[in-house]
Amino acid sequence: MAMDTGYEALIALNAAYARCIDEDQLEAWPDFFLEDCLYKITTAENYRQGMQAGLVYADSRGMLQDRVTALREANIYERQRYRHILSVPTILAQEARGTVSETPFLVARIVRRGETTLFVTGKYIDVVAPDVSGQARFVERVVVCDSSSIDTLLAIPL
Amino acid sequence: MAMDTGYEALIALNAAYARCIDEDQLEAWPDFFLEDCLYKITTAENYRQGMQAGLVYADSRGMLQDRVTALREANIYERQRYRHILSVPTILAQEARGTVSETPFLVARIVRRGETTLFVTGKYIDVVAPDVSGQARFVERVVVCDSSSIDTLLAIPL
Amino acid sequence: MAMDTGYEALIALNAAYARCIDEDQLEAWPDFFLEDCLYKITTAENYRQGMQAGLVYADSRGMLQDRVTALREANIYERQRYRHILSVPTILAQEARGTVSETPFLVARIVRRGETTLFVTGKYIDVVAPDVSGQARFVERVVVCDSSSIDTLLAIPL
Repeated sequence: MAMDTGYEALIALNAAYARCIDEDQLEAWPDFFLEDCLYKITTAENYRQGMQAGLVYADSRGMLQDRVTALREANIYERQRYRHILSVPTILAQEARGTVSETPFLVARIVRRGETTLFVTGKYIDVVAPDVSGQARFVERVVVCDSSSIDTLLAIPL
Repeated sequence: MAMDTGYEALIALNAAYARCIDEDQLEAWPDFFLEDCLYKITTAENYRQGMQAGLVYADSRGMLQDRVTALREANIYERQRYRHILSVPTILAQEARGTVSETPFLVARIVRRGETTLFVTGKYIDVVAPDVSGQARFVERVVVCDSSSIDTLLAIPL
Repeated sequence: MAMDTGYEALIALNAAYARCIDEDQLEAWPDFFLEDCLYKITTAENYRQGMQAGLVYADSRGMLQDRVTALREANIYERQRYRHILSVPTILAQEARGTVSETPFLVARIVRRGETTLFVTGKYIDVVAPDVSGQARFVERVVVCDSSSIDTLLAIPL
């Protein structure tokens, strides 16, 4: 049984995760997950209907690493920046597999010399547990986007 | 005299409150307040001028429940989603009636298959105290919206 | 050697700083810094290229006070409001001069009776240490704006 992950540790984990993406340190992103994990990006509509398919689906850290490799090779032309703004989390349950929580997020997209726009909002539904070294990691991170018109060519992890 | 509500408890209360609204669990929303309470939505301009009238005014938990009933019966046609993103709170004072704090917020509006827009920003001015069971609750929550052009047909609590 | 500034103290300092600006209490803003300090606003592009020049540069509390005086005398015509929404911080290092951290931010601009727009996003790169009274203060606050098209006539501190 996983130890409880405290509120402050949860906030700090969320912050470090978002920083990793916004700093374009994608190669370090899979390390926020346990080896056996679930990472999924879906929409609120699909999530409510219980649809398993998402925009992105990975059930191991290796699949996350593959995704980073693919993103690097895709070699996105127009440079964009993203900025995650995280709201504060709510702890929903302590389960055997870890601490279940939700955290709302907003991501702004900044186009080079262009306008800053509200790209996407949503919530993370997470299960967090310590890894062997005691570091808090994601057992599960399901990213539920509020809008159904989120770009399927999503160039970054959320 | 109310006990002090700690910083972490305040953050968690804010998070749970926003989640309740964004998850459309409006029937549970009045429970975040004490029986005798003040809930008001106003604008920064009105607030500065000391005007008591707001866009929304309730001074008991019963009035909040009535408001939820009215919102449900209004049966809003076009389905919209809202997403609260909360900034971190500042504790301003410890008073006999509770802990006084301010928390900035941003609410995004997501129209079905449409664009995500910045709906409203503002700050909560709160007095928080424990209820009989020791749970932190709002004695007062005054919602001060930054813009004066906030829609008076506001379909959700803020 | 400065004492470590804890995570909660860092969150509270950020919140109080943003509140000072959004409440238009600019005269109190320099007090968030130590006497010898660095405050700079720059862009992500300039920051990456190691360019020292920024949109704003001050290396003492006195320079910050001068800036406030200049802003007050500029007597900006059209009244605007700003709202800082802060994400949660990441502590990066404990150095001799203080605690190094990063905090993402978003600022919305609210024009009187007009629209609310996403004004700027970015991150604070901070060094925080206690002043003689033990109060956490900024030794350094470097404001890195994501967009390169941030208005050089920036009317407020960020």
